[in-house]
Amino acid sequence: MDAGRIAAVIDFLALADRLKHVERRGRTVGPDGAARAENSAEHCWNVALVALLLHREVAEPPDLGHVLAMIAAHDLVEIEAGDTFAYDEAHVLTQAQRERAAADVVFGGLPPDLGARLRALWEEFEEGRTAAARFAMACDRAQGFLQGVIGTGHWRGAGVTEAQTRGRMDPACAVAPVFEALIETLYERARQGGMFAEPRA
Amino acid sequence: MDAGRIAAVIDFLALADRLKHVERRGRTVGPDGAARAENSAEHCWNVALVALLLHREVAEPPDLGHVLAMIAAHDLVEIEAGDTFAYDEAHVLTQAQRERAAADVVFGGLPPDLGARLRALWEEFEEGRTAAARFAMACDRAQGFLQGVIGTGHWRGAGVTEAQTRGRMDPACAVAPVFEALIETLYERARQGGMFAEPRA
Repeated sequence: MDAGRIAAVIDFLALADRLKHVERRGRTVGPDGAARAENSAEHCWNVALVALLLHREVAEPPDLGHVLAMIAAHDLVEIEAGDTFAYDEAHVLTQAQRERAAADVVFGGLPPDLGARLRALWEEFEEGRTAAARFAMACDRAQGFLQGVIGTGHWRGAGVTEAQTRGRMDPACAVAPVFEALIETLYERARQGGMFAEPRA
Repeated sequence: MDAGRIAAVIDFLALADRLKHVERRGRTVGPDGAARAENSAEHCWNVALVALLLHREVAEPPDLGHVLAMIAAHDLVEIEAGDTFAYDEAHVLTQAQRERAAADVVFGGLPPDLGARLRALWEEFEEGRTAAARFAMACDRAQGFLQGVIGTGHWRGAGVTEAQTRGRMDPACAVAPVFEALIETLYERARQGGMFAEPRA
Protein backbone atom coordinates (compact mmCIF):
# COMPACT_ATOMS: atom_id res chain seq x y z
CA MET A 1 0.00 0.00 0.00
CA ASP A 2 1.46 3.36 -0.97
CA ALA A 3 1.26 6.38 1.30
CA GLY A 4 -1.78 7.86 -0.45
CA ARG A 5 -3.75 4.64 -0.12
CA ILE A 6 -2.82 4.31 3.55
CA ALA A 7 -3.85 7.92 4.21
CA ALA A 8 -7.22 7.36 2.48
CA VAL A 9 -7.88 4.23 4.56
CA ILE A 10 -7.01 6.12 7.78
CA ASP A 11 -9.30 9.01 6.79
CA PHE A 12 -12.11 6.55 6.07
CA LEU A 13 -11.63 4.79 9.42
CA ALA A 14 -11.64 8.16 11.21
CA LEU A 15 -14.96 8.94 9.48
CA ALA A 16 -16.31 5.46 10.28
CA ASP A 17 -15.66 6.16 13.97
CA ARG A 18 -18.74 8.39 13.84
CA LEU A 19 -21.03 5.36 13.44
CA LYS A 20 -20.48 4.93 17.20
CA HIS A 21 -22.44 8.16 17.66
CA VAL A 22 -25.47 7.31 15.49
CA GLU A 23 -28.24 6.41 17.92
CA ARG A 24 -30.93 3.83 17.22
CA ARG A 25 -34.33 3.60 18.87
CA GLY A 26 -33.60 0.27 20.55
CA ARG A 27 -32.09 0.43 24.01
CA THR A 28 -29.25 -1.43 25.70
CA VAL A 29 -29.19 -2.05 29.42
CA GLY A 30 -25.99 -1.76 31.45
CA PRO A 31 -25.01 -3.86 34.48
CA ASP A 32 -26.43 -1.10 36.71
CA GLY A 33 -29.83 -1.54 35.02
CA ALA A 34 -29.71 1.87 33.33
CA ALA A 35 -30.81 1.88 29.68
CA ARG A 36 -29.47 4.08 26.91
CA ALA A 37 -29.90 4.15 23.12
CA GLU A 38 -27.95 1.48 21.27
CA ASN A 39 -25.68 2.94 18.60
CA SER A 40 -25.25 1.64 15.06
CA ALA A 41 -21.66 0.42 15.56
CA GLU A 42 -22.65 -1.76 18.53
CA HIS A 43 -25.65 -2.95 16.54
CA CYS A 44 -23.39 -4.04 13.65
CA TRP A 45 -21.23 -6.13 15.98
CA ASN A 46 -24.31 -7.65 17.55
CA VAL A 47 -25.79 -8.58 14.16
CA ALA A 48 -22.48 -10.29 13.32
CA LEU A 49 -22.79 -12.31 16.53
CA VAL A 50 -26.34 -13.37 15.59
CA ALA A 51 -25.07 -14.43 12.15
CA LEU A 52 -22.25 -16.42 13.72
CA LEU A 53 -24.68 -18.27 16.01
CA LEU A 54 -27.32 -19.00 13.36
CA HIS A 55 -25.61 -19.51 10.03
CA ARG A 56 -25.16 -23.27 10.46
CA GLU A 57 -28.81 -23.59 11.48
CA VAL A 58 -30.16 -22.94 7.98
CA ALA A 59 -30.49 -25.61 5.29
CA GLU A 60 -28.01 -23.99 2.89
CA PRO A 61 -25.66 -21.79 4.93
CA PRO A 62 -24.50 -18.76 2.96
CA ASP A 63 -20.78 -17.94 2.81
CA LEU A 64 -19.96 -16.64 6.28
CA GLY A 65 -17.25 -14.25 5.12
CA HIS A 66 -19.57 -12.63 2.62
CA VAL A 67 -22.38 -12.35 5.18
CA LEU A 68 -20.14 -10.87 7.88
CA ALA A 69 -18.55 -8.44 5.41
CA MET A 70 -22.02 -7.26 4.37
CA ILE A 71 -23.05 -6.87 8.01
CA ALA A 72 -19.89 -4.85 8.85
CA ALA A 73 -20.62 -2.46 5.95
CA HIS A 74 -24.44 -2.32 5.95
CA ASP A 75 -24.96 0.74 8.16
CA LEU A 76 -21.98 2.93 7.16
CA VAL A 77 -24.23 5.28 5.17
CA GLU A 78 -25.88 6.24 8.47
CA ILE A 79 -22.77 8.30 9.27
CA GLU A 80 -24.15 10.81 6.79
CA ALA A 81 -27.83 9.88 6.59
CA GLY A 82 -28.53 9.05 10.25
CA ASP A 83 -30.53 6.08 11.46
CA THR A 84 -34.09 5.82 10.15
CA PHE A 85 -36.56 4.43 12.69
CA ALA A 86 -38.35 1.68 10.80
CA TYR A 87 -41.78 2.85 11.99
CA ASP A 88 -41.36 6.55 11.15
CA GLU A 89 -43.30 6.39 7.87
CA ALA A 90 -42.45 9.87 6.59
CA HIS A 91 -38.75 9.37 7.24
CA VAL A 92 -38.78 5.91 5.64
CA LEU A 93 -40.19 7.44 2.43
CA THR A 94 -37.04 9.52 1.92
CA GLN A 95 -34.62 6.91 3.28
CA ALA A 96 -33.41 5.39 0.00
CA GLN A 97 -32.67 8.78 -1.56
CA ARG A 98 -30.88 10.08 1.54
CA GLU A 99 -28.81 6.93 1.86
CA ARG A 100 -27.73 6.90 -1.80
CA ALA A 101 -26.43 10.46 -1.44
CA ALA A 102 -24.71 9.45 1.81
CA ALA A 103 -23.07 6.47 0.10
CA ASP A 104 -21.39 8.82 -2.41
CA VAL A 105 -19.82 10.73 0.48
CA VAL A 106 -18.91 7.80 2.74
CA PHE A 107 -17.54 5.38 0.14
CA GLY A 108 -16.24 8.11 -2.20
CA GLY A 109 -13.26 8.89 0.03
CA LEU A 110 -11.81 5.39 -0.18
CA PRO A 111 -9.42 4.21 -2.92
CA PRO A 112 -11.76 3.31 -5.83
CA ASP A 113 -11.40 -0.49 -5.54
CA LEU A 114 -12.12 -0.49 -1.80
CA GLY A 115 -14.92 2.05 -2.14
CA ALA A 116 -16.56 -0.02 -4.88
CA ARG A 117 -16.25 -3.18 -2.78
CA LEU A 118 -17.89 -1.67 0.30
CA ARG A 119 -20.56 0.04 -1.76
CA ALA A 120 -21.36 -3.24 -3.50
CA LEU A 121 -21.76 -4.97 -0.12
CA TRP A 122 -24.13 -2.23 1.05
CA GLU A 123 -26.13 -2.38 -2.20
CA GLU A 124 -26.40 -6.16 -2.05
CA PHE A 125 -27.73 -5.89 1.50
CA GLU A 126 -30.23 -3.19 0.53
CA GLU A 127 -31.47 -5.00 -2.58
CA GLY A 128 -31.91 -8.27 -0.71
CA ARG A 129 -31.83 -10.41 -3.83
CA THR A 130 -29.12 -12.91 -2.83
CA ALA A 131 -29.43 -15.66 -0.22
CA ALA A 132 -26.55 -14.08 1.71
CA ALA A 133 -28.32 -10.70 1.75
CA ARG A 134 -31.57 -12.26 2.92
CA PHE A 135 -29.77 -14.12 5.69
CA ALA A 136 -28.02 -10.87 6.74
CA MET A 137 -31.36 -9.02 6.66
CA ALA A 138 -32.95 -11.64 8.92
CA CYS A 139 -30.04 -11.35 11.39
CA ASP A 140 -30.33 -7.55 11.29
CA ARG A 141 -34.07 -7.58 12.00
CA ALA A 142 -33.89 -10.34 14.61
CA GLN A 143 -31.18 -8.37 16.47
CA GLY A 144 -33.23 -5.16 16.32
CA PHE A 145 -36.27 -7.03 17.62
CA LEU A 146 -34.27 -8.67 20.41
CA GLN A 147 -32.91 -5.26 21.38
CA GLY A 148 -36.50 -4.06 21.67
CA VAL A 149 -37.26 -6.93 24.05
CA ILE A 150 -34.07 -6.35 26.09
CA GLY A 151 -34.71 -2.59 26.27
CA THR A 152 -38.40 -3.19 27.12
CA GLY A 153 -40.74 -0.86 25.45
CA HIS A 154 -39.36 1.46 22.81
CA TRP A 155 -42.25 0.29 20.65
CA ARG A 156 -44.95 1.20 23.15
CA GLY A 157 -43.31 4.56 23.86
CA ALA A 158 -43.20 5.31 20.13
CA GLY A 159 -46.82 4.15 19.57
CA VAL A 160 -45.79 1.10 17.52
CA THR A 161 -48.29 -1.78 17.49
CA GLU A 162 -47.52 -5.47 17.12
CA ALA A 163 -49.15 -5.38 13.67
CA GLN A 164 -46.72 -2.67 12.53
CA THR A 165 -43.71 -4.74 13.59
CA ARG A 166 -45.08 -7.71 11.62
CA GLY A 167 -44.40 -5.88 8.38
CA ARG A 168 -40.68 -5.98 9.18
CA MET A 169 -40.50 -9.27 11.01
CA ASP A 170 -42.51 -11.52 8.69
CA PRO A 171 -39.90 -11.27 5.88
CA ALA A 172 -37.20 -12.23 8.41
CA CYS A 173 -39.27 -15.20 9.64
CA ALA A 174 -39.64 -16.33 6.02
CA VAL A 175 -35.86 -16.61 5.49
CA ALA A 176 -35.50 -19.84 7.49
CA PRO A 177 -37.33 -21.76 10.23
CA VAL A 178 -34.67 -20.80 12.80
CA PHE A 179 -35.51 -17.11 12.37
CA GLU A 180 -39.21 -17.85 12.71
CA ALA A 181 -38.59 -19.84 15.91
CA LEU A 182 -36.37 -17.11 17.37
CA ILE A 183 -38.62 -14.21 16.45
CA GLU A 184 -41.87 -15.91 17.55
CA THR A 185 -40.26 -16.65 20.93
CA LEU A 186 -39.38 -12.96 21.19
CA TYR A 187 -42.97 -12.01 20.25
CA GLU A 188 -44.25 -14.12 23.14
CA ARG A 189 -41.96 -12.29 25.54
CA ALA A 190 -42.85 -8.88 24.11
CA ARG A 191 -46.58 -9.62 24.46
CA GLN A 192 -46.15 -10.91 28.00
CA GLY A 193 -44.20 -7.74 28.82
CA GLY A 194 -46.88 -5.48 27.31
CA MET A 195 -44.23 -3.94 25.07
CA PHE A 196 -46.42 -2.99 22.10
CA ALA A 197 -48.77 -0.03 21.73
CA GLU A 198 -52.47 -0.88 21.58
CA PRO A 199 -54.06 -0.52 18.12
CA ARG A 200 -55.96 2.74 17.74
CA ALA A 201 -59.72 2.17 17.75
CA MET B 1 -33.86 -25.34 16.63
CA ASP B 2 -35.96 -26.60 19.51
CA ALA B 3 -37.37 -24.29 22.17
CA GLY B 4 -34.57 -24.97 24.67
CA ARG B 5 -31.88 -24.18 22.14
CA ILE B 6 -33.66 -20.97 21.09
CA ALA B 7 -34.03 -19.90 24.73
CA ALA B 8 -30.31 -20.52 25.38
CA VAL B 9 -29.34 -18.45 22.33
CA ILE B 10 -31.61 -15.60 23.47
CA ASP B 11 -30.14 -15.73 26.99
CA PHE B 12 -26.62 -15.64 25.53
CA LEU B 13 -27.47 -12.66 23.31
CA ALA B 14 -29.00 -10.84 26.29
CA LEU B 15 -25.74 -11.44 28.19
CA ALA B 16 -23.66 -10.39 25.15
CA ASP B 17 -25.51 -7.04 25.17
CA ARG B 18 -23.37 -6.15 28.18
CA LEU B 19 -20.24 -5.93 26.00
CA LYS B 20 -21.67 -2.55 24.94
CA HIS B 21 -21.00 -1.39 28.51
CA VAL B 22 -17.38 -2.54 28.84
CA GLU B 23 -15.27 0.60 28.46
CA ARG B 24 -11.84 0.64 26.85
CA ARG B 25 -9.14 3.26 27.36
CA GLY B 26 -9.26 4.53 23.78
CA ARG B 27 -11.67 7.35 23.09
CA THR B 28 -14.15 8.01 20.30
CA VAL B 29 -15.06 11.52 19.22
CA GLY B 30 -18.64 12.47 18.35
CA PRO B 31 -19.72 14.97 15.67
CA ASP B 32 -19.91 17.62 18.41
CA GLY B 33 -16.21 17.06 19.17
CA ALA B 34 -16.90 15.53 22.59
CA ALA B 35 -14.86 12.40 23.37
CA ARG B 36 -15.97 9.41 25.43
CA ALA B 37 -14.53 5.95 26.11
CA GLU B 38 -14.97 3.51 23.25
CA ASN B 39 -16.72 0.32 24.34
CA SER B 40 -15.71 -3.21 23.44
CA ALA B 41 -18.73 -3.90 21.20
CA GLU B 42 -18.00 -0.85 19.04
CA HIS B 43 -14.36 -1.86 18.99
CA CYS B 44 -15.25 -5.34 17.69
CA TRP B 45 -17.24 -3.87 14.80
CA ASN B 46 -14.41 -1.47 14.03
CA VAL B 47 -11.82 -4.28 14.00
CA ALA B 48 -14.07 -6.15 11.53
CA LEU B 49 -14.07 -3.08 9.30
CA VAL B 50 -10.26 -2.92 9.40
CA ALA B 51 -10.10 -6.61 8.48
CA LEU B 52 -12.50 -6.06 5.59
CA LEU B 53 -10.37 -3.21 4.23
CA LEU B 54 -7.01 -4.93 4.61
CA HIS B 55 -7.47 -8.64 4.06
CA ARG B 56 -6.84 -8.50 0.31
CA GLU B 57 -3.71 -6.42 0.90
CA VAL B 58 -1.68 -9.31 2.34
CA ALA B 59 0.20 -11.86 0.25
CA GLU B 60 -1.89 -14.85 1.39
CA PRO B 61 -5.26 -13.55 2.55
CA PRO B 62 -6.71 -15.67 5.37
CA ASP B 63 -10.28 -16.94 5.11
CA LEU B 64 -12.40 -13.84 5.68
CA GLY B 65 -15.28 -15.69 7.33
CA HIS B 66 -12.97 -17.30 9.85
CA VAL B 67 -11.21 -14.00 10.59
CA LEU B 68 -14.47 -12.06 11.02
CA ALA B 69 -15.96 -14.81 13.18
CA MET B 70 -12.89 -14.69 15.43
CA ILE B 71 -13.10 -10.91 15.63
CA ALA B 72 -16.82 -11.01 16.54
CA ALA B 73 -16.08 -13.45 19.39
CA HIS B 74 -12.66 -12.27 20.61
CA ASP B 75 -13.74 -9.91 23.39
CA LEU B 76 -16.84 -11.70 24.74
CA VAL B 77 -14.97 -12.81 27.87
CA GLU B 78 -14.70 -9.13 28.83
CA ILE B 79 -18.39 -9.26 29.81
CA GLU B 80 -17.20 -11.09 32.90
CA ALA B 81 -13.50 -10.18 33.08
CA GLY B 82 -13.66 -6.51 32.00
CA ASP B 83 -11.26 -4.85 29.59
CA THR B 84 -7.59 -5.02 30.52
CA PHE B 85 -5.62 -1.89 29.58
CA ALA B 86 -2.61 -3.25 27.70
CA TYR B 87 -0.19 -1.02 29.63
CA ASP B 88 -1.49 -1.81 33.12
CA GLU B 89 1.24 -4.34 33.96
CA ALA B 90 -0.24 -5.67 37.19
CA HIS B 91 -3.64 -6.21 35.57
CA VAL B 92 -2.09 -7.86 32.50
CA LEU B 93 -0.39 -10.43 34.78
CA THR B 94 -3.75 -11.80 35.93
CA GLN B 95 -5.52 -11.33 32.58
CA ALA B 96 -5.22 -14.89 31.22
CA GLN B 97 -6.49 -16.47 34.44
CA ARG B 98 -9.39 -14.03 34.78
CA GLU B 99 -10.38 -14.49 31.15
CA ARG B 100 -10.32 -18.29 31.29
CA ALA B 101 -12.70 -18.22 34.25
CA ALA B 102 -14.86 -15.71 32.40
CA ALA B 103 -14.96 -17.94 29.31
CA ASP B 104 -16.49 -20.75 31.38
CA VAL B 105 -19.32 -18.43 32.40
CA VAL B 106 -19.89 -16.66 29.08
CA PHE B 107 -19.66 -19.63 26.71
CA GLY B 108 -21.01 -22.17 29.23
CA GLY B 109 -24.60 -20.94 28.85
CA LEU B 110 -24.78 -21.72 25.14
CA PRO B 111 -25.81 -25.10 23.69
CA PRO B 112 -22.59 -27.18 23.86
CA ASP B 113 -21.80 -27.14 20.11
CA LEU B 114 -22.22 -23.37 19.84
CA GLY B 115 -20.36 -22.73 23.09
CA ALA B 116 -17.46 -24.90 21.93
CA ARG B 117 -17.36 -23.13 18.59
CA LEU B 118 -17.22 -19.63 20.08
CA ARG B 119 -14.75 -20.71 22.73
CA ALA B 120 -12.50 -22.23 20.05
CA LEU B 121 -12.56 -18.95 18.10
CA TRP B 122 -11.59 -17.02 21.23
CA GLU B 123 -8.81 -19.50 22.07
CA GLU B 124 -7.44 -19.42 18.52
CA PHE B 125 -7.32 -15.62 18.70
CA GLU B 126 -5.60 -15.68 22.09
CA GLU B 127 -3.04 -18.32 21.12
CA GLY B 128 -2.16 -16.51 17.90
CA ARG B 129 -0.70 -19.59 16.23
CA THR B 130 -2.66 -19.56 12.96
CA ALA B 131 -2.26 -17.07 10.11
CA ALA B 132 -5.92 -16.06 10.56
CA ALA B 133 -5.36 -15.37 14.27
CA ARG B 134 -2.25 -13.30 13.56
CA PHE B 135 -4.12 -11.29 10.93
CA ALA B 136 -6.99 -10.72 13.38
CA MET B 137 -4.50 -9.71 16.10
CA ALA B 138 -2.89 -7.17 13.76
CA CYS B 139 -6.33 -5.70 12.90
CA ASP B 140 -7.20 -5.56 16.62
CA ARG B 141 -4.01 -3.73 17.55
CA ALA B 142 -4.06 -1.40 14.54
CA GLN B 143 -7.64 -0.41 15.42
CA GLY B 144 -6.72 0.19 19.06
CA PHE B 145 -3.76 2.30 17.98
CA LEU B 146 -5.85 4.27 15.50
CA GLN B 147 -8.41 4.90 18.24
CA GLY B 148 -5.61 6.33 20.34
CA VAL B 149 -4.70 8.72 17.55
CA ILE B 150 -8.35 9.69 16.94
CA GLY B 151 -8.98 10.20 20.66
CA THR B 152 -5.68 12.12 21.02
CA GLY B 153 -3.81 11.35 24.13
CA HIS B 154 -5.06 8.48 26.26
CA TRP B 155 -1.44 7.28 26.23
CA ARG B 156 0.01 10.53 27.55
CA GLY B 157 -2.71 10.80 30.18
CA ALA B 158 -1.97 7.25 31.34
CA GLY B 159 1.82 7.80 31.33
CA VAL B 160 2.40 5.41 28.41
CA THR B 161 5.57 6.06 26.38
CA GLU B 162 6.11 5.35 22.70
CA ALA B 163 8.55 2.58 23.68
CA GLN B 164 5.83 0.84 25.73
CA THR B 165 3.44 0.85 22.77
CA ARG B 166 6.15 -0.72 20.59
CA GLY B 167 5.89 -3.94 22.54
CA ARG B 168 2.32 -4.33 21.29
CA MET B 169 2.65 -2.76 17.87
CA ASP B 170 5.83 -4.43 16.60
CA PRO B 171 4.18 -7.90 16.46
CA ALA B 172 1.29 -6.36 14.47
CA CYS B 173 3.74 -4.66 12.07
CA ALA B 174 5.44 -8.02 11.56
CA VAL B 175 2.25 -9.70 10.29
CA ALA B 176 2.34 -8.03 6.85
CA PRO B 177 3.83 -4.91 5.21
CA VAL B 178 0.40 -3.27 5.04
CA PHE B 179 0.14 -3.28 8.84
CA GLU B 180 3.64 -1.83 9.14
CA ALA B 181 2.77 0.95 6.67
CA LEU B 182 -0.49 1.74 8.45
CA ILE B 183 0.92 1.66 11.97
CA GLU B 184 4.07 3.66 11.13
CA THR B 185 1.89 6.35 9.55
CA LEU B 186 -0.12 6.45 12.77
CA TYR B 187 3.11 6.69 14.81
CA GLU B 188 4.11 9.77 12.80
CA ARG B 189 0.77 11.40 13.59
CA ALA B 190 0.96 10.44 17.26
CA ARG B 191 4.47 11.90 17.57
CA GLN B 192 3.46 15.10 15.78
CA GLY B 193 0.49 15.38 18.12
CA GLY B 194 2.65 14.85 21.22
CA MET B 195 0.40 11.94 22.22
CA PHE B 196 2.93 9.82 24.14
CA ALA B 197 4.25 10.31 27.66
CA GLU B 198 7.93 11.29 27.92
CA PRO B 199 10.24 8.49 29.14
CA ARG B 200 11.04 8.81 32.83
CA ALA B 201 14.62 9.98 33.34
